[in-house]
Amino acid sequence: MADPGGCANPVARTVLQQCLEARLQVKAPDEDQEAQWVQIERGMVVYVCFLKGATEDILPKMVSTLLNVRLCESSAGGTVSLLDLPGSLLVVPQATLGGKAKGRVMQYHNNVAKEDGLRLYTRFVELCRQEVTAAGAGVRHGTYGNRQVLHVKTNGPCTHLVEF
Amino acid sequence: MADPGGCANPVARTVLQQCLEARLQVKAPDEDQEAQWVQIERGMVVYVCFLKGATEDILPKMVSTLLNVRLCESSAGGTVSLLDLPGSLLVVPQATLGGKAKGRVMQYHNNVAKEDGLRLYTRFVELCRQEVTAAGAGVRHGTYGNRQVLHVKTNGPCTHLVEF
Repeated sequence: MADPGGCANPVARTVLQQCLEARLQVKAPDEDQEAQWVQIERGMVVYVCFLKGATEDILPKMVSTLLNVRLCESSAGGTVSLLDLPGSLLVVPQATLGGKAKGRVMQYHNNVAKEDGLRLYTRFVELCRQEVTAAGAGVRHGTYGNRQVLHVKTNGPCTHLVEF
Repeated sequence: MADPGGCANPVARTVLQQCLEARLQVKAPDEDQEAQWVQIERGMVVYVCFLKGATEDILPKMVSTLLNVRLCESSAGGTVSLLDLPGSLLVVPQATLGGKAKGRVMQYHNNVAKEDGLRLYTRFVELCRQEVTAAGAGVRHGTYGNRQVLHVKTNGPCTHLVEF
């Protein structure tokens, strides 16, 4: 049987949603300062989680696939890639995506160690930025390890799962 | 290796996100009428897609798992289930979740036939409604086959993938 979207033993899991606007808190408010936010307009939110076994080798393929697969609506009504559009990208680190329901509890035994996740995430954002900037759009991203306070407006999220 | 969140041959794929507020268009505007929306406050958005091989037999387990697994934050800071909270549920049919990237194109060969998907979706919503209503909260849901114009505000989506 076809293995829809997923891999047998993924090392990275991503969920993609189209957006008209997405706004993410990158610094919580404290006594001295209001919360800091980043925002994109039309484009894509990618939630990303690295799993055990993930190395930097996987990153170029991930970036190429996520940015080049045709899942954005064009103004003409067809589907084009984020780079074709070109649309902006909001990268949201999302360790919860590595979870597995065991009875009533979610377990995260398969997530990479935090320091490895941070390194992979940072490099993933850099590679996305190179490609998206070259296409004429922008990349914003969440702070790894933070609470990802997020507001999204969509004209249909067209949620996709892509594993690597 | 553990199979995080996923199944080898899933018949249903769900993505869960916590929300503070979520608003979904259930009828597009036309000449006679403004758009119609449904809305939930604090609770969970579940994006659901049925794949080939799915039957009604899977639905009770899906509903039980999704509503009872502890992935919502309680006011006390711990994690509780949607029914424990109790929080509201917004069900969003999302056929795109069955997609698989093949080169630059997303393919949906593994999705159930549309009429089977509608039947399963309708029954899934009914079963969710029984449980959530009994716990004292509400269920809202999208119109199967429609464009799912969706706005979500989160205090951290805590995105989870759960397959069946």
